[in-house]
Amino acid sequence: MAFELQCPLPLSTYPTVTMGHGGGGRLTQLLIEQMLRPAFNNAALDALHDGAQLEVQGVRLAFSTDSYVISPLFFPGGDIGALAIHGTINDLAMCGAQPFALSAALILEEGLPMETLWRIVQSMRDAAAAAGVPVVTGDTKVVERGKGDGVFINTSGVGLIPAGIRLDPRRATPGDVILVSGPVANHGMAIMSVREGLTFETTLTSDTAALHTLVAELLATVGADAHVLRDPTRGGVAAALNEIAQAAHVGMQLDEAAIPLDEEVRGACELLGLDPLYVANEGKFLAIVAREVADTALAVLRAHPLGGRAAIIGQVTPTHPGTVVLHSRIGGNRVVAMLSGEQLPRIC
Amino acid sequence: MAFELQCPLPLSTYPTVTMGHGGGGRLTQLLIEQMLRPAFNNAALDALHDGAQLEVQGVRLAFSTDSYVISPLFFPGGDIGALAIHGTINDLAMCGAQPFALSAALILEEGLPMETLWRIVQSMRDAAAAAGVPVVTGDTKVVERGKGDGVFINTSGVGLIPAGIRLDPRRATPGDVILVSGPVANHGMAIMSVREGLTFETTLTSDTAALHTLVAELLATVGADAHVLRDPTRGGVAAALNEIAQAAHVGMQLDEAAIPLDEEVRGACELLGLDPLYVANEGKFLAIVAREVADTALAVLRAHPLGGRAAIIGQVTPTHPGTVVLHSRIGGNRVVAMLSGEQLPRIC
Repeated sequence: MAFELQCPLPLSTYPTVTMGHGGGGRLTQLLIEQMLRPAFNNAALDALHDGAQLEVQGVRLAFSTDSYVISPLFFPGGDIGALAIHGTINDLAMCGAQPFALSAALILEEGLPMETLWRIVQSMRDAAAAAGVPVVTGDTKVVERGKGDGVFINTSGVGLIPAGIRLDPRRATPGDVILVSGPVANHGMAIMSVREGLTFETTLTSDTAALHTLVAELLATVGADAHVLRDPTRGGVAAALNEIAQAAHVGMQLDEAAIPLDEEVRGACELLGLDPLYVANEGKFLAIVAREVADTALAVLRAHPLGGRAAIIGQVTPTHPGTVVLHSRIGGNRVVAMLSGEQLPRIC
Repeated sequence: MAFELQCPLPLSTYPTVTMGHGGGGRLTQLLIEQMLRPAFNNAALDALHDGAQLEVQGVRLAFSTDSYVISPLFFPGGDIGALAIHGTINDLAMCGAQPFALSAALILEEGLPMETLWRIVQSMRDAAAAAGVPVVTGDTKVVERGKGDGVFINTSGVGLIPAGIRLDPRRATPGDVILVSGPVANHGMAIMSVREGLTFETTLTSDTAALHTLVAELLATVGADAHVLRDPTRGGVAAALNEIAQAAHVGMQLDEAAIPLDEEVRGACELLGLDPLYVANEGKFLAIVAREVADTALAVLRAHPLGGRAAIIGQVTPTHPGTVVLHSRIGGNRVVAMLSGEQLPRIC
């Protein structure tokens, strides 16, 4: 097989892979849009989704994959094992699917304490059992000491998309309302507080959770009036909404005061100079729905234990397409741009 | 979530993960059987397959995952990218499925030359296009320099199992005939020759290939009389047949003289003191079929470009259940045991 001469990313600017290419910001987007998407060009991939939507013999399937390289392996509220189960369940849920099977592939570093592996495997087991989604196939590889980092986990998953559901980032339409299912930035700040050795009056806890039952209730009520769902992981709410705004060629207007944020998380963000809109979440999602059903959607979310603090945080606009604008607490407007690199490496 | 006190592997014997736990031999089996399978206990997982077989709204699906950590990234006959595409296609084919979608998840090490990544991505693209199986969803993560090894790739895949196909290792039945689709040990010895800097009169070349079209032709002809398919990757023919013999509680008798082996591969194995039965393959498979269709199966395999040197290599026996016995060239019988650790680390 002949190799093409020209790398699509200019090698003078990007001679090597940098941490920023994995941060979920502009560099990640560049790598995906310039190199990976064109290489694997096909209709399912072009949907710019958290997963692919496929139709097989009349059955609508969602299929998604994610590798988890989070450091540290254990953190308040979770660990890499639970995260890997929740994350792929959530990616499938964001396609509107009810997940029915997961795979789990472990890359272990030689020297990993067996008891650490056992704790992680138990956590995966418990998370899968709690979510009601079985791990049906797996793989285990080992790399030499110093060629890995304890454990990396890939989970992939398959789900069933009910009739009448049509989620697609390109369906974000001016007039649509943007909701979030709860307070943002908890996962990222929990990880950061461990890494930085910060202590607060209360422990910052990751929000890692499986969102498929909450999503199922939302979709059962609003159906095709749900236009886009997205879980704001790497790159946070900012990256997620920018990607949707670009895909749909629409603008977005957010109301800062409406975005739920725990006081401890706000304090930690201020201390570390981080903007909570860019911080990763693992148990929250954004929903973009038709204006007529916004209040219903909010009520459904709030009635579920995982959505009790859901809020309407903004709207889709015909103006400034591709750009997310925040109306700040102090009254001004500012652009919420896509970050270039990453502010929080290995957050998931 | 409460952690159980007791790790199912005795920590005094296995305090840490070793390279042998990833080698495909007895230690890998121990890790899977003692820790992983019980944790994720469910019917699909219990099938001891290369992938799971699922039924969704009347549609029979196969779902499989594999991470590729091969070193070096490029080798005669292929590279990690092509290998990752072929490997998961083959795992699906071994379930009797026609693959229809793949995922690709990359874990990149900071500092990986962008051009190296581009070569690998092109190779994945070309392999997927040649096989006619699209990559529909993906993920990219980056870890710090020294926390990975260039690139690790996970591919997962979904396939459709035609009506009338019932492949299951437990269907291996005394009287069944064992076939192999071509010469063994080429992949592993190609990798070893690069690692050891060996040169032979001809370059040893990996046999990496997508086997789904060959499998489709076989199954279209022999249908449910094909009882088990298995691609002998890590651990080679020995590990694959031992696993099946144990799963089905049957014995196996192999005829060494009948096992196809390239002369250069035989020479390299002798030089390095390796038994070709334990060396990995990436473009071959074992088929265990009803005796009545064995000759037909052989003819179908031989008529395909990837099966030209297929052979009948042995049979399933009611005697010595769980054990594979080789009738050697010099006339004796010896047990082909499962290796404890690995003889060739990071071969796939």
